[in-house]
Amino acid sequence: MPPSISPLAVDLPPLPELAGVRLGAAAAGIRYQGRTDLVMAELAPGTAVAGVFTRNRCPGAPVDWCRSILPAGRARALVVNAGNANVFTGRAGREAVQATAEAAARLVGCPARQVFLASTGVIGEALAHARLTAALPALHATLRADAWEAAARGIMTTDTFPKAATRTARIAGAEVRISGIAKGSGMIAPDMATMLCFVFTDAKIPPAALQSALARGSEASFNRITVDSDTSTSDTVLLFATGQARHARVPTAGGPMLAGFRAALAEVLHELALDVVRDGEGAQKLVRIDVNGAVSARSARRVGLAVANSPLVKTAIAGEDANWGRIVMAVGKSGEPADRDRLGVAVGGVWIARAGAAVPGYDETPVVAHMKGREISITVELGLGRGRSSVWTCDLTHGYIDINGSYRS
Amino acid sequence: MPPSISPLAVDLPPLPELAGVRLGAAAAGIRYQGRTDLVMAELAPGTAVAGVFTRNRCPGAPVDWCRSILPAGRARALVVNAGNANVFTGRAGREAVQATAEAAARLVGCPARQVFLASTGVIGEALAHARLTAALPALHATLRADAWEAAARGIMTTDTFPKAATRTARIAGAEVRISGIAKGSGMIAPDMATMLCFVFTDAKIPPAALQSALARGSEASFNRITVDSDTSTSDTVLLFATGQARHARVPTAGGPMLAGFRAALAEVLHELALDVVRDGEGAQKLVRIDVNGAVSARSARRVGLAVANSPLVKTAIAGEDANWGRIVMAVGKSGEPADRDRLGVAVGGVWIARAGAAVPGYDETPVVAHMKGREISITVELGLGRGRSSVWTCDLTHGYIDINGSYRS
Repeated sequence: MPPSISPLAVDLPPLPELAGVRLGAAAAGIRYQGRTDLVMAELAPGTAVAGVFTRNRCPGAPVDWCRSILPAGRARALVVNAGNANVFTGRAGREAVQATAEAAARLVGCPARQVFLASTGVIGEALAHARLTAALPALHATLRADAWEAAARGIMTTDTFPKAATRTARIAGAEVRISGIAKGSGMIAPDMATMLCFVFTDAKIPPAALQSALARGSEASFNRITVDSDTSTSDTVLLFATGQARHARVPTAGGPMLAGFRAALAEVLHELALDVVRDGEGAQKLVRIDVNGAVSARSARRVGLAVANSPLVKTAIAGEDANWGRIVMAVGKSGEPADRDRLGVAVGGVWIARAGAAVPGYDETPVVAHMKGREISITVELGLGRGRSSVWTCDLTHGYIDINGSYRS
Repeated sequence: MPPSISPLAVDLPPLPELAGVRLGAAAAGIRYQGRTDLVMAELAPGTAVAGVFTRNRCPGAPVDWCRSILPAGRARALVVNAGNANVFTGRAGREAVQATAEAAARLVGCPARQVFLASTGVIGEALAHARLTAALPALHATLRADAWEAAARGIMTTDTFPKAATRTARIAGAEVRISGIAKGSGMIAPDMATMLCFVFTDAKIPPAALQSALARGSEASFNRITVDSDTSTSDTVLLFATGQARHARVPTAGGPMLAGFRAALAEVLHELALDVVRDGEGAQKLVRIDVNGAVSARSARRVGLAVANSPLVKTAIAGEDANWGRIVMAVGKSGEPADRDRLGVAVGGVWIARAGAAVPGYDETPVVAHMKGREISITVELGLGRGRSSVWTCDLTHGYIDINGSYRS
């Protein structure tokens, strides 16, 4: 029985067509029955590509593949399957990647090394890639410019709702669009998540500038979320720029001309990252943790992640208990500079502790009400410096145990 | 309703009297009703002491106190309360510590700075130390040499069974005894755990040698266990040597004369550490992770802890699923040197994966049977060097969520 839709789910926004992108989904029967599990996108000739990948030391074969072809900066197709991650599959995994890329390349009419691949699902089982290559021709024949929802649904695994975001931006006065889809639900932690994210834009941006914008945007979004501290072997974020929009030429290094584009891209990535947390396995509450007064932004982020990853903090939130003592514990265990006697903790904007002790006679009523809501806010004040960061997580519930105690079998 | 006793519980071993130690427990009504929550031990004059403490940056007032008095190396009493950790309590916390130490010192007839203190329980609430000091005189009057079980029970919080271990060793031919009690169940991770451990010996050992033996023994025991990766603000391990046994003088630095003592101490600490994991909140299975072939022992331990702390690995074990793909993921996320294509994983002694891929046609039958047992063994072979380490953890179950989603309220 599939888990019911996350109570934190948001509706899929309308996604207009994006010049240079046609996409679609099909049922290849990799693992799931009665649903799509194979997604393809064909990209206009000249499409530039940027990518960031998991830092897990045991990456899947598709990640190896994408890393090897990324330096050329060009892409004509994307093929994604759900249900099998093609990770820890040895030579068979490399063969699956090669065969899939070649099959897609034949359909599109491009070198295999311009076909980007991603797989998500079970680790360690051979990917039945013959099913992929058999399903690709019919899928390719049906690619459409308006099949965004189908694509967003086709990449889901334990996700309970499809995830997409879109924005417009201006480059030298001309409007461009940025649209992305993502999947992710568990094994979510920097860097990065069992998280696949594919973003498309009609802007014409050189690969180096594209890469720089993506790296910066990912750092502020996907690298600030965690569901369970587990870092996937398959995390992939790809950004394709089809170059179909008409605007002044963007310099190789990007520069100020891309300021608006970078801001809009950051919004798309941030929205998708939060959607992933909203769909965290078993999540009942979306939790934002703001850390202020750290010795640096990096230190603030680490403190935030220590709080966000603490099972005791997460179970307390699930129990709607503003157990700030556990927040103090988590700050202390982060290993980052912290002075107990300067530390403050607020929940829902109410300061419960300041300068190393509980605030005398603080009014628990608004905090209790806040904890019953869907969106929880925690603020940690370290009182040491000016470093600040925000991270997002979800609570740890029986649902997480249900989903992960019986996922494979 | 208290959770039922852990299915991994072990019986309390018989603990003989130990010369120079009298102890007991009383009900001070700090938090719990109808049970003891205050433990005292009086130690013979001349008792040496060693201690190791949490590395959490927000330690409790009793930890600060013990750290400040430890350098003198002498102890006459120990006072422990359960139910309130006296952490993040500011000036009130320091006053509680001072008042409790002074009250015990008056009863024993020693300086307050020879009274060691530990508290465990809720963080951030003022400790009603007047209840402690009021209960101490009657408790002191009833201290006995044989009240080990009472002491082991009096320090429990969410523990479901009392924990103790005892061994004998020889120092220069004379027999000495080492007996310890411990508590701990959640917020358990290096360094170290919501874990209190008090070990007593009748050996006569100088403080410096005692400290060295304790530090080494803790490293190989309490610093290799994890329940939930959360590091307590109160972790304390104290070792008291009453010096009542008759044996040749031990040099200040210890040396070879203490080889047998160190080995027996290590066994006591290891047994107590495993008892803590056996009582991990919600634990249904005890999990041992052996990591071999790492670049160093330190690296091996980090890899082991990454596996032991992975919620996805722990929930898979709860579901009796030998999901070795998640083990691969956890190895890869540890950040330690690992080469996917040399990696091997065994469960219950059966190699499921070797050299970066599943073992073709491996027989799952014995693995399935192993996963249904109470004690789970995971072996990770990195194939890089000679570094090895073992760590212990438990599974992550609905019981953990039940206990921690409603502990405080």
